[in-house]
Amino acid sequence: MTKFVDLNSDLGESFGVYTMGMDSEVMKYITSSNIACGWHAGDPLIMDITVKEAIKNNVAVGAHPGYPDLMGFGRRNIEITPAEARAYMLYQVGALRAFTEANNIKLQHIKLHGAFYNTTCLKPDLADAIVDAIAETFGKNIILLALSGSYILKRGQEKGLRIAHEVFADRAYNTDGTLVSRKLPGAIIHDKDLAIQRIKRMVKEGKITTIDGTDINIKSDSICVHGDNPEAVSFVKTIKENLQADGIEIKSLANFI
Amino acid sequence: MTKFVDLNSDLGESFGVYTMGMDSEVMKYITSSNIACGWHAGDPLIMDITVKEAIKNNVAVGAHPGYPDLMGFGRRNIEITPAEARAYMLYQVGALRAFTEANNIKLQHIKLHGAFYNTTCLKPDLADAIVDAIAETFGKNIILLALSGSYILKRGQEKGLRIAHEVFADRAYNTDGTLVSRKLPGAIIHDKDLAIQRIKRMVKEGKITTIDGTDINIKSDSICVHGDNPEAVSFVKTIKENLQADGIEIKSLANFI
Amino acid sequence: MTKFVDLNSDLGESFGVYTMGMDSEVMKYITSSNIACGWHAGDPLIMDITVKEAIKNNVAVGAHPGYPDLMGFGRRNIEITPAEARAYMLYQVGALRAFTEANNIKLQHIKLHGAFYNTTCLKPDLADAIVDAIAETFGKNIILLALSGSYILKRGQEKGLRIAHEVFADRAYNTDGTLVSRKLPGAIIHDKDLAIQRIKRMVKEGKITTIDGTDINIKSDSICVHGDNPEAVSFVKTIKENLQADGIEIKSLANFI
Amino acid sequence: MTKFVDLNSDLGESFGVYTMGMDSEVMKYITSSNIACGWHAGDPLIMDITVKEAIKNNVAVGAHPGYPDLMGFGRRNIEITPAEARAYMLYQVGALRAFTEANNIKLQHIKLHGAFYNTTCLKPDLADAIVDAIAETFGKNIILLALSGSYILKRGQEKGLRIAHEVFADRAYNTDGTLVSRKLPGAIIHDKDLAIQRIKRMVKEGKITTIDGTDINIKSDSICVHGDNPEAVSFVKTIKENLQADGIEIKSLANFI
Repeated sequence: MTKFVDLNSDLGESFGVYTMGMDSEVMKYITSSNIACGWHAGDPLIMDITVKEAIKNNVAVGAHPGYPDLMGFGRRNIEITPAEARAYMLYQVGALRAFTEANNIKLQHIKLHGAFYNTTCLKPDLADAIVDAIAETFGKNIILLALSGSYILKRGQEKGLRIAHEVFADRAYNTDGTLVSRKLPGAIIHDKDLAIQRIKRMVKEGKITTIDGTDINIKSDSICVHGDNPEAVSFVKTIKENLQADGIEIKSLANFI
Repeated sequence: MTKFVDLNSDLGESFGVYTMGMDSEVMKYITSSNIACGWHAGDPLIMDITVKEAIKNNVAVGAHPGYPDLMGFGRRNIEITPAEARAYMLYQVGALRAFTEANNIKLQHIKLHGAFYNTTCLKPDLADAIVDAIAETFGKNIILLALSGSYILKRGQEKGLRIAHEVFADRAYNTDGTLVSRKLPGAIIHDKDLAIQRIKRMVKEGKITTIDGTDINIKSDSICVHGDNPEAVSFVKTIKENLQADGIEIKSLANFI
Repeated sequence: MTKFVDLNSDLGESFGVYTMGMDSEVMKYITSSNIACGWHAGDPLIMDITVKEAIKNNVAVGAHPGYPDLMGFGRRNIEITPAEARAYMLYQVGALRAFTEANNIKLQHIKLHGAFYNTTCLKPDLADAIVDAIAETFGKNIILLALSGSYILKRGQEKGLRIAHEVFADRAYNTDGTLVSRKLPGAIIHDKDLAIQRIKRMVKEGKITTIDGTDINIKSDSICVHGDNPEAVSFVKTIKENLQADGIEIKSLANFI
Repeated sequence: MTKFVDLNSDLGESFGVYTMGMDSEVMKYITSSNIACGWHAGDPLIMDITVKEAIKNNVAVGAHPGYPDLMGFGRRNIEITPAEARAYMLYQVGALRAFTEANNIKLQHIKLHGAFYNTTCLKPDLADAIVDAIAETFGKNIILLALSGSYILKRGQEKGLRIAHEVFADRAYNTDGTLVSRKLPGAIIHDKDLAIQRIKRMVKEGKITTIDGTDINIKSDSICVHGDNPEAVSFVKTIKENLQADGIEIKSLANFI
């Protein structure tokens, strides 16, 4: 049986005159883009340009809403209520969808950003508010991309959403399937060969070795990759080639979820 | 032949803990609401609440995008390019539409706010960018509400949009159909009886007396009214009663445009 | 021996066209104002106007810096680093001080706002960063006003700052001297007579009965009062009259700290 | 008689995770820095870091306030009132000065940014508001750096401010001493040898050839240079060496104004 996996990357993170990311380079290798929606990064012009660039590269488009914190790039936790989580998500996804429609494509998925992602994947009250709002507003065709095995995906499945499990090439895992905090030693996998082995095992066997050495089951519909610098882009290319050489087909989520 | 007219008001202009406008009061009398989209006023929670309140009051919902200038309430002109005009409009209308969809209603119309309205109604390059983006993105069912007789409406009509001509109850007009600047004497009609006479004549005869005393033709699909204070709300009630007593039917734009 | 106490209130919380608070009313009764610095509330025009109004009412001026969160009014916690705490405080206090200097008065004190206050009063790493930056920048003449008995005041005293202990008229206390969270029952003292008794006892005896019924020692250099609505303003007047009738002199911090 | 000139550059224009400019490179050659104050660019952490870097490189520090328009980098005109011009300048300069004081140096000068500079240098009502506020607040020791020969400098001189005339290495001039708009052909001097000749003539002879070929008088206390990219930085080095080789001493404004 052929295995499929999607490669996703956060794009459209420039803002005004500020440039971030090598979007047009990394677009050559990925299958799905998470486009910033103007709160933690991105602005309306950048969103429009990035959607156009994704289309040109045959990359599927997702919305990537974040906290209202441009100064902190959406990485700092802000204490928000479920009503705020719902409204902040709706606002940003709606805004991005105007650009997918203006450019005649469908919005494929929603992936929350940074601290918004970390918090809502795991906190039931926020996760429920997000999932319910997606189901009511954007319908059951849109895909929710979130931390593999997380609460928010269980809730999404219950509500009839299409869901996709995201894994990370360069991050260590705890035995409960969460990521090891970046503040702890060993959180980042610097050895690229090891990272590729781990990805392949996640995709093919559905297993990952956690930071304490035990093996856990993990679902991997999409691998998060980065395009911040030439080395990162080159690593994406390597990942892709390794997976393909191993008989794994790389395609965007909507094709197999 | 029965005459129809819509009564529209700018709503949802609160922000965070800041309250503005007597939305729930003025909603009793109007037929269309222009809901702020978070840039010059409004925030995601306010947008959601205001859409719900409009539904409860059987008031149609429009998007009311403005300049990125909360500190100036979108009233100060900012020099923007056509690409920015397009993208800023798309972003905000898309954001608001997420809330109309979350609440199971259709977005009826788009009306730009403040300096964004004043500038884009009259400047062809900005107006074209706005109209084309509406046509491509939100389709030909949505109504563009703008200054009666303005360039942007001509362009809208050419592009097949549904268009609605807006008139102002309390403002003096120049002979070219533009509003007399608020900075000039006589710009505001303070005499309420006179204002009502003028509205009735605009709706029934399609005529208005300009500031220099000549009569011009004017189309009036919708009358802009205000709900900032008890006196303003009471004046909206008076306008409505006077129009109805005169056999004019008050209904929302989508019913007759 | 005569007892002194200061009455402080958060002012200048309007923003752009949005009005908040009855500043000119509450200014008649208080001795110190905490003026918002444009991040959680306030803007440069409001800051200038509020400083002028304070001078006219013989009210001392303090800076009231908050988190960068206008949408949440600075009440939501944001995870920040000590370096950010330092820089955010310096920025806002510096900005406000330009207006005290433009209007020829001295900045009397600094009081952090909302979640910035709650977090920095108690977390040593943030508190140290704030205190050290005040000492290095604004010198040892400026007064740090913070939660009575809190860590940040101990640090301030060690560093040679002038410090002032703040108490709350309408809040219940825990036995460790912190405020009972607003989310818990009994957090707010609604009985105004009781509130006044409690204030008098804090000022005269240095004691307060905590939520579990025990008495603790508490220092009270300044009482936080509110001017949000007519009832609140009237309560400030009542507090002032009661304290004065009891022989307590109401004067601004710089006169007795 | 020895001629003096200052080399100034806009620095501290990064924001949050976004990097802009090669500040640490260009600092090696310039004598004065204009540090962004958080409105059009910069944030409190960046301001603190940039002041420290300036000190390390023996570069004088000025405040560089701009319009409240991060998305447009302060380059788009916004219609503001004199009261807003005054308050926006005070706010930002006050904020930056907190960082010069925290780092034990004096603020040398104020130079407005982008559209705020272009508009206020020439419009008397805005210029007067700015100059008067500087004089009242920051005293007569601070230097106002603005377009050579502009109205704002005349006003500054009348009010007793120290003033400095700024010239541009790479820009064409109109016969009234204003810069040729960037939208017009010939606005930018691309020929670097010509640019250097023009600078030398401005500094040594006080003359410049305008775009229509006539010579006008021009005062040049400071030359605006750029550090956006390696080529720009290298050009700054070349300018400096050429001026020094010609016997012109490069030093910061406070040393000779």
